[in-house]
Amino acid sequence: MISKETVKHLKQLQEKKYRREFNEFTVEGVKGVSEALESKMTVALIVIDGKLRDRDDMREIIKLADSLEVATEFCGRLDIDNIKTTETFPGVIAIVETPDYGSVDLADNSPIIALSGLKDPGNLGTIIRTADWFGIKNIILGEDTVEPYNPKVVRSTMGSLFRVKIFESNNIVQTISNLKDKQNYAVVALDMAGKNLTEMKSPKKTIYIFGNESHGLEPKLDNLITERYTIPGRGGAESLNVAVAAGITMSRIMSD
Amino acid sequence: MISKETVKHLKQLQEKKYRREFNEFTVEGVKGVSEALESKMTVALIVIDGKLRDRDDMREIIKLADSLEVATEFCGRLDIDNIKTTETFPGVIAIVETPDYGSVDLADNSPIIALSGLKDPGNLGTIIRTADWFGIKNIILGEDTVEPYNPKVVRSTMGSLFRVKIFESNNIVQTISNLKDKQNYAVVALDMAGKNLTEMKSPKKTIYIFGNESHGLEPKLDNLITERYTIPGRGGAESLNVAVAAGITMSRIMSD
Repeated sequence: MISKETVKHLKQLQEKKYRREFNEFTVEGVKGVSEALESKMTVALIVIDGKLRDRDDMREIIKLADSLEVATEFCGRLDIDNIKTTETFPGVIAIVETPDYGSVDLADNSPIIALSGLKDPGNLGTIIRTADWFGIKNIILGEDTVEPYNPKVVRSTMGSLFRVKIFESNNIVQTISNLKDKQNYAVVALDMAGKNLTEMKSPKKTIYIFGNESHGLEPKLDNLITERYTIPGRGGAESLNVAVAAGITMSRIMSD
Repeated sequence: MISKETVKHLKQLQEKKYRREFNEFTVEGVKGVSEALESKMTVALIVIDGKLRDRDDMREIIKLADSLEVATEFCGRLDIDNIKTTETFPGVIAIVETPDYGSVDLADNSPIIALSGLKDPGNLGTIIRTADWFGIKNIILGEDTVEPYNPKVVRSTMGSLFRVKIFESNNIVQTISNLKDKQNYAVVALDMAGKNLTEMKSPKKTIYIFGNESHGLEPKLDNLITERYTIPGRGGAESLNVAVAAGITMSRIMSD
């Protein structure tokens, strides 16, 4: 059965400081764990509800883990309350090593999404999932953006966290400046005061920046921005949800 | 100060059965309450944190409420735990009468969004907000869709609930059949097995249907559907979040 140390470690990984300290995070559920195993990331350990070990989907996971030499432990009912990150434990959780991508993958000059000051885990997860859908490979996160290995983010990416490269910048102004000056990227801001999005041309080497849910883009980014666009509305709402705005923008740039 | 009956009633309105029984719901926060007062809906009562009664934004609300002959009560710290619907009470909550729109507003033949089996309050709220942004006037909700007056939905509409007409159908097949047969509406499904969305023509008299987050559209709707479209992807994600898919679709139909 599962060791006390593993239970303690899983509980720790619910906190950001320990995720940082150990460079690990968790993913729950059959789909998420399977996608982690199938991804390029390194899975450190899988914990399965002992009662479910003979269920077909769990046997598949155990088989896959074995073939990759990933350790599997089984837990009892009493352990679950300590390790689950959702109300209802879906029967399986994995510890995954936080990937270090080194730098943005510029190989095909494809568009990059940058998020500065985004605070809602669901919004970040949804944006990662949408980027994966449209085949966008890189997302840059500013230093004041919600952490991508937060369990709520992991859950709402629906497995896309294992396919899209997420760069956590310590200084988004610096990161974007470098891409602009040294790699000739254009920097497009999506906010409330730009030109009509339908007029936007979508050259490949472009970074599309989205800001905070309530306050939009911070002034520190102003000097970097080459163009500003707005999604044209004609109703009463003051703004769009940022994940919806990002979705509309990605749909626009990836369908050209 | 606030009466025990008001505290009890506000607490009751956190439950769906009482919202149904009293035909009332609540909205929290300065922006939401202000928009409720400014809307065509009837506000039954406003409750303000007594400590904040002299803050400028609260004075504005009190003034507006007075001009509309809406009663205002003040509550103490101890009442707040019983009436708040979020972790942090934003200082003001209103009781609003659930509107009865009678029937779908067909006046200008504008597109209609229909949601069947949607379960996540955040997704519904975001879709209502997006519809408001793009100027879509009518949303039809199927009988198995999350209730629009759930506090989480109300919050995530960011005030748009007070502008978009929401029809709760008891029988979505019947409601859509009627619009199709008697009013000549086309019925377009957005799902995973349709033609490329970029090929879609967007005539005005069209109902766009979206289904459940996990299971998509129910078979009972199949016979009603005149065309099916899919948002073209090229990455690894299995699907898009339904609020993002609805946003991309609304952007497409309202920018023609």
